[in-house]
Amino acid sequence: MHSITQEVESGRLATGLRLPPVRVLEHTLGISKNTVQAAYDELVARGVLETRARDGVYVAAPLADGPDLFEPLGAPAPSLISLAPAPHPKNQDIRIDLSRIFIDPDLLPIGQLVDCFRSVLSAPGLLPFYDDQGYPPLRGLIAERLSGRGMDVHADDVIITTGSQQGIDMVARALANKRIAVENPVYSHARLSFESVGGELVPLSFDPFDSIPIDAWAREIARKKPSLLYTITSYQNPTGYSYSTYELVQLLELSQHYGFALLEDDWGSDMLSGSEYRPTLRALGGPNVLYLNSFTKKLLPSLRLGYIVCSPETRGPLIAAKKLSTLANATLIEAMLFEFLDRGYYDTHLKKLQAALDGRYHACLEALRELMPEGVRWTTPGGGSTLWLELPAGVDGARVRQAAGEMGVRVEDARTHFHGEPHRNGFRIGYAFLPEETLRKGLERLAEAIGVGSK
Amino acid sequence: MHSITQEVESGRLATGLRLPPVRVLEHTLGISKNTVQAAYDELVARGVLETRARDGVYVAAPLADGPDLFEPLGAPAPSLISLAPAPHPKNQDIRIDLSRIFIDPDLLPIGQLVDCFRSVLSAPGLLPFYDDQGYPPLRGLIAERLSGRGMDVHADDVIITTGSQQGIDMVARALANKRIAVENPVYSHARLSFESVGGELVPLSFDPFDSIPIDAWAREIARKKPSLLYTITSYQNPTGYSYSTYELVQLLELSQHYGFALLEDDWGSDMLSGSEYRPTLRALGGPNVLYLNSFTKKLLPSLRLGYIVCSPETRGPLIAAKKLSTLANATLIEAMLFEFLDRGYYDTHLKKLQAALDGRYHACLEALRELMPEGVRWTTPGGGSTLWLELPAGVDGARVRQAAGEMGVRVEDARTHFHGEPHRNGFRIGYAFLPEETLRKGLERLAEAIGVGSK
Repeated sequence: MHSITQEVESGRLATGLRLPPVRVLEHTLGISKNTVQAAYDELVARGVLETRARDGVYVAAPLADGPDLFEPLGAPAPSLISLAPAPHPKNQDIRIDLSRIFIDPDLLPIGQLVDCFRSVLSAPGLLPFYDDQGYPPLRGLIAERLSGRGMDVHADDVIITTGSQQGIDMVARALANKRIAVENPVYSHARLSFESVGGELVPLSFDPFDSIPIDAWAREIARKKPSLLYTITSYQNPTGYSYSTYELVQLLELSQHYGFALLEDDWGSDMLSGSEYRPTLRALGGPNVLYLNSFTKKLLPSLRLGYIVCSPETRGPLIAAKKLSTLANATLIEAMLFEFLDRGYYDTHLKKLQAALDGRYHACLEALRELMPEGVRWTTPGGGSTLWLELPAGVDGARVRQAAGEMGVRVEDARTHFHGEPHRNGFRIGYAFLPEETLRKGLERLAEAIGVGSK
Repeated sequence: MHSITQEVESGRLATGLRLPPVRVLEHTLGISKNTVQAAYDELVARGVLETRARDGVYVAAPLADGPDLFEPLGAPAPSLISLAPAPHPKNQDIRIDLSRIFIDPDLLPIGQLVDCFRSVLSAPGLLPFYDDQGYPPLRGLIAERLSGRGMDVHADDVIITTGSQQGIDMVARALANKRIAVENPVYSHARLSFESVGGELVPLSFDPFDSIPIDAWAREIARKKPSLLYTITSYQNPTGYSYSTYELVQLLELSQHYGFALLEDDWGSDMLSGSEYRPTLRALGGPNVLYLNSFTKKLLPSLRLGYIVCSPETRGPLIAAKKLSTLANATLIEAMLFEFLDRGYYDTHLKKLQAALDGRYHACLEALRELMPEGVRWTTPGGGSTLWLELPAGVDGARVRQAAGEMGVRVEDARTHFHGEPHRNGFRIGYAFLPEETLRKGLERLAEAIGVGSK
């Protein structure tokens, strides 16, 4: 007992340290349980130790004049840069979120995913180790499926990622020359990822109600000489724009002429029925195009599953970049996806999903035509999960957002998608997340809010 | 058969497309299996289709005079930096790997993990969305457990990560001033991560057979003014060194005096029985210490589960850094870990694991004493999964490694752990991965290889 007091007073027993349970000391010191308990009780009474409910005995906080060695140090916390997260209003009263890009989980195959997890847990079971590049049978199956869409892809070209985000980040980190051309507006987390690695962005502005201004882009590319162009080729986020095959070929020609690589983010094409017949940039351009896809929207967000298709030249640096950020990802999730694809569930699911999204899309268009004031326009992506709603030039977007918020409707602050000052006056409408009646109710209030913003 | 040829020739069946297996067509078309097989065989003979071993029948590559739109473009692949992955000999003949830091999966609770996964799949089921910071109940439980070890931690201070690696990388990315002190030698992937973000390393050399040369470290720190010190406080990787509580206090004093933050990587302390009574740097230093831990070694590598404990000031930038690399991680894995901890399985498992590791550790020490030539030394970590084996100054480590490899024994190239030229002549011995007899056999051959390297 005396020795504990000494240890505490000398500072060798830290404040908050848990002491051995009575039964352990009884065993270790060969003294009776009662003796140990009595010693502890007395030390507690003297304030040297304290008991915490159900938890055991702890060294008490030092007295005010005790050694200050064990006080939490006063030095300031490390000064970290403040990477501003995307604006995200925390208004708890907002009940209808018009800007969510996710698909309604009611449309997702949760039961079948559970079946596949159960099956994998039975066989092959929990595999103890991981493959840096991703579960090999899954990589093989993805390569096979992409080959069926006209892409010449081998299992070695596929790297499994934690959603598209990890793929984007891997490319950002692995790029030697980080001058990166992006569509403007563009998916904000891609922009943030490129900026976070010290990348210099070359914004290529476009009007989602028109075609790609390829000559203006060519001039900008000639001037700024990017090493990579990141492009979302179908249902561009946030505008819903889809490149025509002709425009894809023009991008490839630019890439060849100016010597930059292409990163195609194909999060969306298989949300459209018949999409397997639409060529991707990778199918047209071969291994000079890095190709990203993700199951986040289409299967289940919480799985965080995506992949990147590379080439023999880019594979090593990309895997090295993946290892820097996570070493590898959870094998069970990857093995489940293999099972899901192998059983043909994904194809069946996509057919149903495409039909459901089609219904919501057309209901959304109908509601917009009916409800929106004169001068409001919207893109007609034909698939995917969002469209772009454009306000007339005179309408104050911030006031619309605020008025909508007061009516319980969330609209995103679309500035986050733009490089510099926004050149469009609008925001995303996610038509895949809300049931039709909820979406309609939200759009009714939005129309009202646009009225407020027009005054 | 004719229709397949037509489809292929018209380009409607893409090259590489997999055709239905014979048994599927037999069923779909209602024709006999033999007829289908005969048709396929003829089309293969004509070069329209090709078979791939065990994989089925595919549309063959187009003729040379086909439309060149679908040829891969000739532009060079993007030039990416070559982030050298850690050296990893691919010699397939190597059968005994003495350098693995993992724990033998036979000692890991795979059955109980499967039980917990099954339970989570039943309830709460597959949650559709994710929490950027990690599954809240898991964060709460981890905070509670750490509080039981004398750390004042709240659920909001815990960020779940994909292994320790993501935590290290998040800190590397979020640090404003990236001058980072590291032990030398140090875990190579931490070093690579710091370097990959443009960090300037301040190597603090030490001798694992002696105590930390705190005065030399203080001089180096005064000279180089790092903003952070990354330290592996128990069973340092690669040396097995554990800081004494006195040395931890000295680090805190240095941190306070020179105004740098501390990142404690505590991958190992709970691999020692009674470790709950040993104070961590975080327990001693409070929220100025960022604390990392991981379940990779102790539960199952393929789960990729770890966490970082931060403070209210560092939380925002660290979550932002996590979102840049993966947005978030798979919820199911996090929910399973909650279940595993909540059932008390982890504590029971650790007790058994600690006993098993203890057995392997002592067997390893015994074998080393018996087998190693004069002059070879090794650290005695007392826990963890590896120790450091040091060769006498005159012995050529590269020759030892090569000679061992020729005898089917893998020894790591430890240069990867050092900043600049290695100041130690040795490497890790992982005693937790191999069964005792295998380890002994490996050490016998290693002793022989050391003989070769001494000549």
